[in-house]
Amino acid sequence: MNNLSDTITAISTPIGEGGISVIRVSGENTFQVVEKILSKSKESFKKINIGDISSHTIHFGYLYDGDDIIDEVLISIFKSPNSYTGEDVVEISSHGGVFVTQKVLGLVIKNGAVHAEPGEFTKRAFLNGRMDLSQAEAVADLIHAKTNEAHASSIKQLEGSLSEYVKKVREDLISVTALVELELDFAEEDLEFAHKKDLQKRAKSIISDLEEIISSYISGKVIREGVNVVIAGKPNSGKSSLFNALLKTERAIVSEISGTTRDYLEENLIINGILFNLTDTAGLRTTEDIIESEGIKRSYGRIKGADLIIFLVDSSASSEEIKLSIEYYDRNIKSDNSILVYTKADISSNEDIKKDNLVISINDINLLSELKKEMTRKVSTSLSAVKSDSIILTNLRHKICLENTVASLNNVIKSIDDNMSGEFISIDLRNALTHLGEITGSVTNDEILHYVFSKFCIGK
Amino acid sequence: MNNLSDTITAISTPIGEGGISVIRVSGENTFQVVEKILSKSKESFKKINIGDISSHTIHFGYLYDGDDIIDEVLISIFKSPNSYTGEDVVEISSHGGVFVTQKVLGLVIKNGAVHAEPGEFTKRAFLNGRMDLSQAEAVADLIHAKTNEAHASSIKQLEGSLSEYVKKVREDLISVTALVELELDFAEEDLEFAHKKDLQKRAKSIISDLEEIISSYISGKVIREGVNVVIAGKPNSGKSSLFNALLKTERAIVSEISGTTRDYLEENLIINGILFNLTDTAGLRTTEDIIESEGIKRSYGRIKGADLIIFLVDSSASSEEIKLSIEYYDRNIKSDNSILVYTKADISSNEDIKKDNLVISINDINLLSELKKEMTRKVSTSLSAVKSDSIILTNLRHKICLENTVASLNNVIKSIDDNMSGEFISIDLRNALTHLGEITGSVTNDEILHYVFSKFCIGK
Repeated sequence: MNNLSDTITAISTPIGEGGISVIRVSGENTFQVVEKILSKSKESFKKINIGDISSHTIHFGYLYDGDDIIDEVLISIFKSPNSYTGEDVVEISSHGGVFVTQKVLGLVIKNGAVHAEPGEFTKRAFLNGRMDLSQAEAVADLIHAKTNEAHASSIKQLEGSLSEYVKKVREDLISVTALVELELDFAEEDLEFAHKKDLQKRAKSIISDLEEIISSYISGKVIREGVNVVIAGKPNSGKSSLFNALLKTERAIVSEISGTTRDYLEENLIINGILFNLTDTAGLRTTEDIIESEGIKRSYGRIKGADLIIFLVDSSASSEEIKLSIEYYDRNIKSDNSILVYTKADISSNEDIKKDNLVISINDINLLSELKKEMTRKVSTSLSAVKSDSIILTNLRHKICLENTVASLNNVIKSIDDNMSGEFISIDLRNALTHLGEITGSVTNDEILHYVFSKFCIGK
Repeated sequence: MNNLSDTITAISTPIGEGGISVIRVSGENTFQVVEKILSKSKESFKKINIGDISSHTIHFGYLYDGDDIIDEVLISIFKSPNSYTGEDVVEISSHGGVFVTQKVLGLVIKNGAVHAEPGEFTKRAFLNGRMDLSQAEAVADLIHAKTNEAHASSIKQLEGSLSEYVKKVREDLISVTALVELELDFAEEDLEFAHKKDLQKRAKSIISDLEEIISSYISGKVIREGVNVVIAGKPNSGKSSLFNALLKTERAIVSEISGTTRDYLEENLIINGILFNLTDTAGLRTTEDIIESEGIKRSYGRIKGADLIIFLVDSSASSEEIKLSIEYYDRNIKSDNSILVYTKADISSNEDIKKDNLVISINDINLLSELKKEMTRKVSTSLSAVKSDSIILTNLRHKICLENTVASLNNVIKSIDDNMSGEFISIDLRNALTHLGEITGSVTNDEILHYVFSKFCIGK
């Protein structure tokens, strides 16, 4: 764990080859660290005094490691408190190779900075009051967004929509709590500032609002993480072919030999703005091939965790085989979240199946698009929620905070029903306030901070 | 092909998830394009007038797509000619997600920029005289550098070491050419400005210098691209195990079943500062498994292109099997660039083999390091060249230019021997000057530029 007095550094751009990489440095010694390695001349080391430079300006220079020039760079200067973290910050734009970027990072560390932990820059931004906790989480969501909906919901949260809502509810609760506690102070005078029935009504109204937001979480999860779809079925039912046809790529190796897919493959696919995380599984059968049976074991694991299962039956197989597959499906797979699909329509002569069922052929785009429609329909409740203007909860932590708030408020209602004394009511109200405050971080602790920021990438 | 009057844009940081991405915009309409989408307010669109802003400053703003905020960004302003390309440039630092970055790029394109081609920013920097051609190529080499040596040689080239050398030789040749051509102008007066024998001597001396640099190219290739090493051998000779042991990872799936590695795997490994590109191949045998035999076909392809082949023989196998393997090696593999290694020393009882040969066991670090030493020794001529201070040619294009220069100078020498007239000598001298000039781009054409910049990544 780094100390707040440490000057931290990390590569803030994605790792890989590109034109530019940015190495960020933040903390009280940032300028001293950079001045040790930054020269305005390539003939010999000539120090640049960052103290003499205005904030929010960019400067060309050479990075020196001893006598060697490591790179030509641009340096962006941000002076405290006007920076992302609120501290003194320098962003070094180096040439975007993996090796040279690591070399610059190493040089900065050698000269007094320590390597930043995941999310540590944003954590400092939060601790320095540059953003609240739900906005910090929105930064991570924005970076991970893969669809328009996920992007829009995280921008909304970054701009403070959830924060403002929570603030409003908290203010409401604080005024109620104040009344209850005022009454306690004047208990001997037997005054009743807070009419108990009014209090109950307000609590119930807040609960109903919160529950609506909590119920948006299912849609929110789909928006943020996508729908986990598993393509399953007996060996050679056409799983890899469908997987490829859906992805329009040759990602999976297709062959006519059963057991070609030894492990599972995973890819993302966006249909009608919904992110589907598609998994192709090893065929469901017993096998003596050690490697393949490891793959099958993993397949079962994937099916258990799926939001949607597409189960394939080869419509060109014998009636007996089809019957066995359907029995397997009915017994082990069938649910509200499963789709039964007959494959290989182009080489099947079984007209009965074609009449009554969802039948596809990877060579028939119209049939494939029927399947895509069915996949979208299964998650359509989520889809409609996306289109509304209300707040959508995408974050499990926020959901738990809101559920805890509701639980505390339910205790308030119960205490009033049971004619409990004001002290009990006050405790539950304060608990509700605490849980709400945990969303924006106005109430927080190390555990919450660790939970939130450990999900960040390094460099943010 | 974009026009020079187009305003170009691209994502300049590597593609992936990170804290920051940079979208670069360059060209005469850069500021107009950015002003259309950049707002100082998040309540409603409020234009920022970039004309009023100083160069090399950074500004916070909101990117608008119609009424929607797409991202909060930092904008770096570079005014012509003080930018990477020499044109007006804006660098947009967005949140570093794949989706949001693409969205910002799309927004910039929708508002009047066109997508940059690979290397187009650097190409404009060259065309605007911000760097010469060999320096531009050094930028690409720096980005692709994977070792200290590759990094150091590209920095040297970026700082102009090759350019300066070429300039010096060119000046030398220009003065010679001037003398020869002066003599032609006064041909009727029968003056001899350039003594033919002196001229030959100077040409020979330049050729000898150039040939020394050309001969550094073999080392240069190793520095820049690494040594392609293929691990080969009969099935179950321990290829994947050695591959993993060398990489200290579990990259390849290891099992006791022959044919586990169906395709080839490739990884980079740096030993003593030398980059080895390690390939694990499917076992060399005939097989009826269609997928595996495709892998074996590819293995043979890899062996043919290798700089170094490590051929493994299982020392725990029967004498007959070992004999067959050695025969195969002697017939098909053995060369100056091959190493014969006996594996599984720990379970072998064949003491004769252990005495006279390079024997390893993946569980014995000392034996492994013997193999690493042998690998390094095989390319040690390159290693010693790396340590010298002279120019090392890492670029095939430069090598060809220098070879063409030498060929032209050899023609000069031959023409003098054959008592040819000054016109012929002059033509060959001018050819030599042209070829030299192609290195730095003082002489150039579309074909050369296309060749150089098509190797760049997009965004540089």
